[in-house]
Amino acid sequence: MNKIRYGMVGGAEGAFIGAVHRAAAALDGQFELVCGAFSQDPAKGRRTAAALGLDPARAYDDLGALLAGEKGRMDALVIVTPNHLHALAAIAALKAGFHVISDKPAAMDRAEADSIAVAVKESGKLYALTYTYAGYPLVEEARRRVARGEFGAIRRIDVMYPQGWLSAPIEQDGQKQAAWRTDPARAGISCCLADIGVHAFQLAEHISGQRVTEISADVSTHVPGRRLDDDSSVLLRFANGARGTLTASQICAGEENGLSIRIYGEKGGLVWTQTEPDSLILKWPDRPMETLRMGGPGLSPEALARCRVPAGHPGGYIEAFANHYRAVAGTLAAGRVTSPLGDPLWFPGIAEGVRSLAFVETALANSRGAEKWSSL
Amino acid sequence: MNKIRYGMVGGAEGAFIGAVHRAAAALDGQFELVCGAFSQDPAKGRRTAAALGLDPARAYDDLGALLAGEKGRMDALVIVTPNHLHALAAIAALKAGFHVISDKPAAMDRAEADSIAVAVKESGKLYALTYTYAGYPLVEEARRRVARGEFGAIRRIDVMYPQGWLSAPIEQDGQKQAAWRTDPARAGISCCLADIGVHAFQLAEHISGQRVTEISADVSTHVPGRRLDDDSSVLLRFANGARGTLTASQICAGEENGLSIRIYGEKGGLVWTQTEPDSLILKWPDRPMETLRMGGPGLSPEALARCRVPAGHPGGYIEAFANHYRAVAGTLAAGRVTSPLGDPLWFPGIAEGVRSLAFVETALANSRGAEKWSSL
Amino acid sequence: MNKIRYGMVGGAEGAFIGAVHRAAAALDGQFELVCGAFSQDPAKGRRTAAALGLDPARAYDDLGALLAGEKGRMDALVIVTPNHLHALAAIAALKAGFHVISDKPAAMDRAEADSIAVAVKESGKLYALTYTYAGYPLVEEARRRVARGEFGAIRRIDVMYPQGWLSAPIEQDGQKQAAWRTDPARAGISCCLADIGVHAFQLAEHISGQRVTEISADVSTHVPGRRLDDDSSVLLRFANGARGTLTASQICAGEENGLSIRIYGEKGGLVWTQTEPDSLILKWPDRPMETLRMGGPGLSPEALARCRVPAGHPGGYIEAFANHYRAVAGTLAAGRVTSPLGDPLWFPGIAEGVRSLAFVETALANSRGAEKWSSL
Amino acid sequence: MNKIRYGMVGGAEGAFIGAVHRAAAALDGQFELVCGAFSQDPAKGRRTAAALGLDPARAYDDLGALLAGEKGRMDALVIVTPNHLHALAAIAALKAGFHVISDKPAAMDRAEADSIAVAVKESGKLYALTYTYAGYPLVEEARRRVARGEFGAIRRIDVMYPQGWLSAPIEQDGQKQAAWRTDPARAGISCCLADIGVHAFQLAEHISGQRVTEISADVSTHVPGRRLDDDSSVLLRFANGARGTLTASQICAGEENGLSIRIYGEKGGLVWTQTEPDSLILKWPDRPMETLRMGGPGLSPEALARCRVPAGHPGGYIEAFANHYRAVAGTLAAGRVTSPLGDPLWFPGIAEGVRSLAFVETALANSRGAEKWSSL
Repeated sequence: MNKIRYGMVGGAEGAFIGAVHRAAAALDGQFELVCGAFSQDPAKGRRTAAALGLDPARAYDDLGALLAGEKGRMDALVIVTPNHLHALAAIAALKAGFHVISDKPAAMDRAEADSIAVAVKESGKLYALTYTYAGYPLVEEARRRVARGEFGAIRRIDVMYPQGWLSAPIEQDGQKQAAWRTDPARAGISCCLADIGVHAFQLAEHISGQRVTEISADVSTHVPGRRLDDDSSVLLRFANGARGTLTASQICAGEENGLSIRIYGEKGGLVWTQTEPDSLILKWPDRPMETLRMGGPGLSPEALARCRVPAGHPGGYIEAFANHYRAVAGTLAAGRVTSPLGDPLWFPGIAEGVRSLAFVETALANSRGAEKWSSL
Repeated sequence: MNKIRYGMVGGAEGAFIGAVHRAAAALDGQFELVCGAFSQDPAKGRRTAAALGLDPARAYDDLGALLAGEKGRMDALVIVTPNHLHALAAIAALKAGFHVISDKPAAMDRAEADSIAVAVKESGKLYALTYTYAGYPLVEEARRRVARGEFGAIRRIDVMYPQGWLSAPIEQDGQKQAAWRTDPARAGISCCLADIGVHAFQLAEHISGQRVTEISADVSTHVPGRRLDDDSSVLLRFANGARGTLTASQICAGEENGLSIRIYGEKGGLVWTQTEPDSLILKWPDRPMETLRMGGPGLSPEALARCRVPAGHPGGYIEAFANHYRAVAGTLAAGRVTSPLGDPLWFPGIAEGVRSLAFVETALANSRGAEKWSSL
Repeated sequence: MNKIRYGMVGGAEGAFIGAVHRAAAALDGQFELVCGAFSQDPAKGRRTAAALGLDPARAYDDLGALLAGEKGRMDALVIVTPNHLHALAAIAALKAGFHVISDKPAAMDRAEADSIAVAVKESGKLYALTYTYAGYPLVEEARRRVARGEFGAIRRIDVMYPQGWLSAPIEQDGQKQAAWRTDPARAGISCCLADIGVHAFQLAEHISGQRVTEISADVSTHVPGRRLDDDSSVLLRFANGARGTLTASQICAGEENGLSIRIYGEKGGLVWTQTEPDSLILKWPDRPMETLRMGGPGLSPEALARCRVPAGHPGGYIEAFANHYRAVAGTLAAGRVTSPLGDPLWFPGIAEGVRSLAFVETALANSRGAEKWSSL
Repeated sequence: MNKIRYGMVGGAEGAFIGAVHRAAAALDGQFELVCGAFSQDPAKGRRTAAALGLDPARAYDDLGALLAGEKGRMDALVIVTPNHLHALAAIAALKAGFHVISDKPAAMDRAEADSIAVAVKESGKLYALTYTYAGYPLVEEARRRVARGEFGAIRRIDVMYPQGWLSAPIEQDGQKQAAWRTDPARAGISCCLADIGVHAFQLAEHISGQRVTEISADVSTHVPGRRLDDDSSVLLRFANGARGTLTASQICAGEENGLSIRIYGEKGGLVWTQTEPDSLILKWPDRPMETLRMGGPGLSPEALARCRVPAGHPGGYIEAFANHYRAVAGTLAAGRVTSPLGDPLWFPGIAEGVRSLAFVETALANSRGAEKWSSL
């Protein structure tokens, strides 16, 4: 097996998601970090490279230099910068002939995401967007069971994503994660919706297989002085007539990362909760509640393909993240660059990126208007 | 101690809530059932009376006869009929000089509820409305802690109430509870909102101490042939600027009685879940999550006054219900007929009834219109 | 329906279990408290009677007077005194022609329990022993499923009962519950084993249908100055070869009432936890874990006969307790005085009482000796 | 940073724990797999090496060749063979000048473990023994809090480890994991105690800081034809007078990997459960229960040093495992080869290995004898 050689843009020491990508890429031994442009501060970028044991010659001061210098020596670029550089980096890397693995959201807004879509098409390269939660084995199991009609026609979908870390104006005290996420210049049009609302939206459509067609949103900012949204509530209508709600908030003081989804059909329902990711609860009107478990009996082959250890050995965030890398590696090993939703190891791509940003834009516009429903 | 002598209208064999009221009234030994007009079917009413060990002479065929016959021999009337008789029975009983304990909703619509309010005022009698969940010790604890500012200014309130028992058209197969609740003639203008949405609404305002001022609702009917709503999603805006959602649904197949509320302030949040009623979870940004327990350390005197057994001995629905009866008994024993919210043993009354029906009417109207927000 | 008229010995104001018995007896409206000898302090006994709304003439200063005075006016005696009076009261009541409902343990020791057994036999009266936990619907469900072989041959049974309320020497500060339970003159030979160990033991044999044949015990006292045991660990061997453990402790600081049992057979296992009594968890090697719920799908008729409210409305301790009263009422209504284990509404009696005290005596003796195993 | 170059003995395709070690070693990017003697079947060993992307020249047919061939090119050997090769491999590697990271148990029996201890001492090399559960952040937090007296003197320790995977005689159907673990020639003197009992024992002593001084054991084999133990129950007495129990079983049908520990002191208690590893529950008599969370408020620096992601992003088995590798890397980077228990990143070594095997031997001997207590 040849490892996939990747470079990284962003992700210097102190960043959150860069380290997660590196751990996820390392987990199954299919990727090898070979170079990076880790920071806009060159000294910091070089320190990061050294700490990671990289050849100093492959620690670049900017992405342009990296793309030029790594031709033939690198297969893929991993993008873990703040949002405003996502599209720029993705398009440049694709044009330079590299595959791209990007953190979400795909871009600052829908127009940028559309440009990436064009670049993906023209380049013929792979573009993966790490909507983490789609990587959990039990999320895949949920999706498969909905798809094969186990719950009947879907009637109701509620997804919630409460966090509390932006309850106080920590961006004013120099907390870096908060600073760029609440800064329109670096985060784009939204903080809360773009950071976590898109996860909730992607998950709802992904598991249910239903498309949101109309929304009515109430998006707000609770912390004085904050320049972007930190809280949102959205009514959802789906193509098949299902109804539901999406709430995403970063001012739920005391909450950690409380993503949870409930989906109900004519014949039963399911509940999945991110903090207990190894379990999927199935509820039935006419028989006892069931709990499916990572690695346990009753899982579909596609869910099992995302498990690494026997049942009862907890998985977690990094393993879910690693499943995106595993899917990318499997797709490239098969000589392909896309993995449609039906694949055993599917991964989200630019289509999901475009759609999520359409959701963010529509929700923000609807929230400012007097009209009840906006089409998506 | 003299027991409070009560009669019951509705609640014949096979009904659900009548038996619950009788058990709740019996639990603390402060009430005594002395008579009843249990059914519109006289034979059935008499059978019920006999099964309950009542004097056959005090089993009445209709409420009028009961009210006339029990003058001086009964203190209070308990109303557990279908909704369409609530206002009629309450007003008649109040005018006849009896106290009233009514199941919710107070009436078919807001206008009826207003009439009850007038009758309460004119009669000088006690009127209690059994919003069950306000009777749980940990709900009282939550309310007290919000009121004393432990969470800071409240920013977000989410209440959900999923049930699954109306997922199939069981009213067409003669299930009695479903039949009257989905029949406009007996239930009034709403099934789902009037049956469980009002509980969620009352709980949200009760614990948070905040009033809903604007709502945007999506109320729907999923089961073909059903004549009233079975599903609802509502965006909430509160007087102090807090935002939130209320969802109440009876087509969440597989759900039992999943009422749950989450309230977040500037400094922390709380979660209470009806199926684990003895616990109240407190979440904090700066210190570990805490779990308060029925009868356990840290409870306020008002919550402890609603506990019956040492910590670790599970309480439940009937005990919560009995706390309304306990509050009524305590109020009457103190020579009063009202118990304002600050009282150690407070109980909901007609004000809560009026407000809940205003919510139902407004939500239904908003859902049918194109305007986004409606004032409450 | 004629109510069963009962008197109570013990259970004055401030006692714990007397109030529970009264609430349990009241819950279904099948019992009526008519008299009592509530306290050895006559004034206190009379105060209790008055608070309960009893005829002052039926508040007795001692049990002898009660038994003499209530001939023909009372059907049953409920015994809720400290342990040292259990046997005395039960035998006197049975000889006087009354049915007996006694709190556990049946007596101070095995010899006393044997005497009660003789009196039960000679009197032809009913004797019920309130091993609370056998009254929970899901405990009954567990028992039924084991009995019908759903788990195959049982191999392992672990029951634990941690409490923390005796972690400090509160008996030295006048806490009444602690004072008599740690006093050999009133509690008998044991505190911890007799108070909660017997519950664990009864539950293990009751659900599993297996008899303990050999035990090896380590019984200890951790709190300085305490005169009886407050902690115990016991290895169990069952008649069919199953193995297991029983732990009961009152010095597990911070624990409330953590009774929990796990039973495993060749084909699967079950878990029941007292603080979540409405659920029974079934674990299987070859299919998903199931959770049975009070009032929910999949319950046997015998478990359903112990449910009062629709699924999702929490039951609790008082309801479980009330199921013993319901079973007694049903047995008497059927013209019988015993209810063998196969009955739909079975209740524990003196046989369980004798066996539990044999367990306590054997465990204490084994713990003091050097021999590993003692037969039971 | 120079990566630690390691070779692996055992861990061919299809093995369980080899892949876990590789993932754990990869997670933080501090280790690099450079060679292996993966299987006693040379072809299989070479296939594994190829799948892992290794230089074919460094895929060895036996450990002797590897140790000879890798002098100067490898830093450490990771041992993931069946038990009977652990001591042999460790001693050979240490003598050849390599550090050793071994899966547990250290050896087949106590005598072998003692020989390793001698080799460790003589070689001056590092020896790490991956008692996985000691790597969880919340386990470290528990240990720190006990050590600083937060719970007062420890009185009771109960550790349970139920698994169900050996409920059926799967070793007779060729299941590889089961085949070697139940084979005395490859597993040694014990299956259940040596495989999981040692984990439970190590965890109990590790967190509590107390040494087991006396045990009384009931070790049994439930599955017909099985040659080693599959079930055990042990009474524990600790040096300071604390009491407790240890149960480890592989015939708890339906259980996955249910390791759980409860420790109680004079002032409070703690509960940690392996399937919810990110939480540590603290119970108090006089204040509400607290739940500490991975990455959340209230953790000690030593626990935080074992966290990789912000609170609310689930960790798991591989992360815990990786913390042993992180500790080894940190120790070597500091120019040391041992990490005493007080170190911020402590790891278990041969002392824990010797002690665990002493426990296994003593438990087996005691179980066969008539004497109640055996000293440890």
